[in-house]
Amino acid sequence: MAGTQQTDVVISKGRFEAFSDGVFAIAITLLVLELHPPDLTIPTNATLVSALLAMWPEFLVYWGSFATIGIIWFNHYALFHNARRITYAALITNLLLLSFVCFIPFTTLLIAREGLIPVATAFYGLVLLLMSACFNVLFYVMMLTPGERGSFLGFLRKRNLWNSLGPAVYAGGSLLAFASPLASILLFAAMAVFYLLPGTVKGTLDATGGSSTST
Amino acid sequence: MAGTQQTDVVISKGRFEAFSDGVFAIAITLLVLELHPPDLTIPTNATLVSALLAMWPEFLVYWGSFATIGIIWFNHYALFHNARRITYAALITNLLLLSFVCFIPFTTLLIAREGLIPVATAFYGLVLLLMSACFNVLFYVMMLTPGERGSFLGFLRKRNLWNSLGPAVYAGGSLLAFASPLASILLFAAMAVFYLLPGTVKGTLDATGGSSTST
Amino acid sequence: MAGTQQTDVVISKGRFEAFSDGVFAIAITLLVLELHPPDLTIPTNATLVSALLAMWPEFLVYWGSFATIGIIWFNHYALFHNARRITYAALITNLLLLSFVCFIPFTTLLIAREGLIPVATAFYGLVLLLMSACFNVLFYVMMLTPGERGSFLGFLRKRNLWNSLGPAVYAGGSLLAFASPLASILLFAAMAVFYLLPGTVKGTLDATGGSSTST
Amino acid sequence: MAGTQQTDVVISKGRFEAFSDGVFAIAITLLVLELHPPDLTIPTNATLVSALLAMWPEFLVYWGSFATIGIIWFNHYALFHNARRITYAALITNLLLLSFVCFIPFTTLLIAREGLIPVATAFYGLVLLLMSACFNVLFYVMMLTPGERGSFLGFLRKRNLWNSLGPAVYAGGSLLAFASPLASILLFAAMAVFYLLPGTVKGTLDATGGSSTST
Repeated sequence: MAGTQQTDVVISKGRFEAFSDGVFAIAITLLVLELHPPDLTIPTNATLVSALLAMWPEFLVYWGSFATIGIIWFNHYALFHNARRITYAALITNLLLLSFVCFIPFTTLLIAREGLIPVATAFYGLVLLLMSACFNVLFYVMMLTPGERGSFLGFLRKRNLWNSLGPAVYAGGSLLAFASPLASILLFAAMAVFYLLPGTVKGTLDATGGSSTST
Repeated sequence: MAGTQQTDVVISKGRFEAFSDGVFAIAITLLVLELHPPDLTIPTNATLVSALLAMWPEFLVYWGSFATIGIIWFNHYALFHNARRITYAALITNLLLLSFVCFIPFTTLLIAREGLIPVATAFYGLVLLLMSACFNVLFYVMMLTPGERGSFLGFLRKRNLWNSLGPAVYAGGSLLAFASPLASILLFAAMAVFYLLPGTVKGTLDATGGSSTST
Repeated sequence: MAGTQQTDVVISKGRFEAFSDGVFAIAITLLVLELHPPDLTIPTNATLVSALLAMWPEFLVYWGSFATIGIIWFNHYALFHNARRITYAALITNLLLLSFVCFIPFTTLLIAREGLIPVATAFYGLVLLLMSACFNVLFYVMMLTPGERGSFLGFLRKRNLWNSLGPAVYAGGSLLAFASPLASILLFAAMAVFYLLPGTVKGTLDATGGSSTST
Repeated sequence: MAGTQQTDVVISKGRFEAFSDGVFAIAITLLVLELHPPDLTIPTNATLVSALLAMWPEFLVYWGSFATIGIIWFNHYALFHNARRITYAALITNLLLLSFVCFIPFTTLLIAREGLIPVATAFYGLVLLLMSACFNVLFYVMMLTPGERGSFLGFLRKRNLWNSLGPAVYAGGSLLAFASPLASILLFAAMAVFYLLPGTVKGTLDATGGSSTST
């Protein structure tokens, strides 16, 4: 219920969830627009099969980005679930968070277009880094009471550790891209899968009180 | 009310429906983006008419895909209608289901671009197969009580048989594509029309309790 | 309250409005994607001004289509406002209606691409004709009681006459396109403006009971 | 509560917010579709870095437009928050407002495509001018009682002055574009940032009663 203990309450949350849900839903659906069927002069079964197989990196980033936006949406849901009102800080942080979420289709297309080269992959990771950083700030302003805000350790204790580590992992993955883009993209995909594991999901719900029975 | 008998209840459903509705609505609307007006050097009535008539396969897959997403949305509505909470398994399965729904505009464009060749049509059917498989799993985890889950026959008995047959029909249609892509695509369209028939709709509502009066 | 007097009630309306709103909102927003800035080799103020001025037919169809989707959405709102449940017939008709609404961005692009030639304009009108025909059927199944359904005159009396005339006007406009595409497109735009007039809006609300105070 | 003092009440607001939220969410998400990854013949780290750096004006307008749509959405939220019903004038003004909001991705692409030349920037500002003008009219019809409507000074006093100045600033920025497009675009971005400042947000909430506790 920490979300309701904000002192500088300004805005009620109904339309903020609706607007955010819309943006998440559109961003996740736009990912498919970045997938372009191969342009074959004479499409045959053989050429099309090989062309589709050659698209595996694009399919990998499609499901990787889909899982990433899906899980950040779920975290957003858990964070807003018990909040009654949105503070000014949360309003601004949420808008910034959404601007990075909406940016993911671009970085996804960047990899699909340019291939798995270091800079494209690092740029992809940079946006994930900024997105998860915004999310941690959003958690900070929405879930912590003014009293708790002082100590960073208290922040880590209250927050389920894994999500706090998100920015660190995304930063590391971005650097890793210059050694091996494929290893980097697999790390990002693994991070999404990890966030989808029962334990992490439960941890998120416990940290935010999202598993409460109120609807 | 089976949806409320889940033991590992974790999440309340409000935003899950909103998010899913958004994804369904966007995926179904994006289909039109795959339709490109003919690029005519000198557009005349004659050339445009023949060009539009030549687009009949694209129009067929547009309405076929529209009906398919429309009916899967309706099944999704019926399934979630009486559910009070979303379990972890339902959360993951729902995300996976949506990732295949969002993929349909791509496979639709694939056929529009490459024409009705076997591989393109089979790939189109493969995504429908995975989508309907996900839906059956979603039904399994949301509608069956732990007690009922044991017997597969009990599953078929509880589930209205037709929807359970979906994966089988889509698998068969994908294989049929290598014999006759047109027959295959007509089978997929027929399946969508079939799911829109009063009997099937009523069967779905009965199986899910979706026709209950609660809103 | 006629909407609640349906005998074959099957579905509650909450998510049907949400899904339909999503489709309307996306279709109306996709219109702008059909507007492509001029591709100028050396963009200068002079060349850009003339290029933008040359786009006037595209801007005209953009606002024309925007007003058309906007007003059909409003009619949809008024129709569903007092309905408590959705019948099977309404479910199917609504899906078909949405498939034509989603098709408008394509016909809008068709005119933008091919120019105001008869066939493109007539095709644009044909889709409006099918859309407004679906809407009248939807009104018929949702607002009329089984008793009222018999007489077509009773239908016209209950329905505010103007909306019933929609199909006729769109059919006439489609034929007019072969004489003068510009006159035809102006008629479609005028129809949208007409539907936005206070009298027509009030008539729609009265016919559907949409101005009731229930939310 | 002025929103509820309208005399010519016609429509309840639920779906108007949902529809508007959808349009805002889609328009803000479509902005990313205007960002096209550089088309590099042989993508290397060096060429990609320089190509991405060269895209800075596009990234600037992306976040500028994102902030602009985000803040106009927030103002829309605040304005509708306490309104119980939508008058005819508000219905029409809202549709017109949305048509300009949806137009922003086009003007954003125009600058991205043609570069920061005066006409493109002025056209970008013109749409912002029309959008903020519509918003002020919407505020006028929704928040002022018939009694208050007479005096323009009373309008300015009731309305938080800053938002009323929006049209003036956007008009000035459009003219400024002919002297310096960059200064003009920075002014538009600054305006968005300014509207996101705590004081302005609070002013908007006070002017509309949006910070009330009702949800």
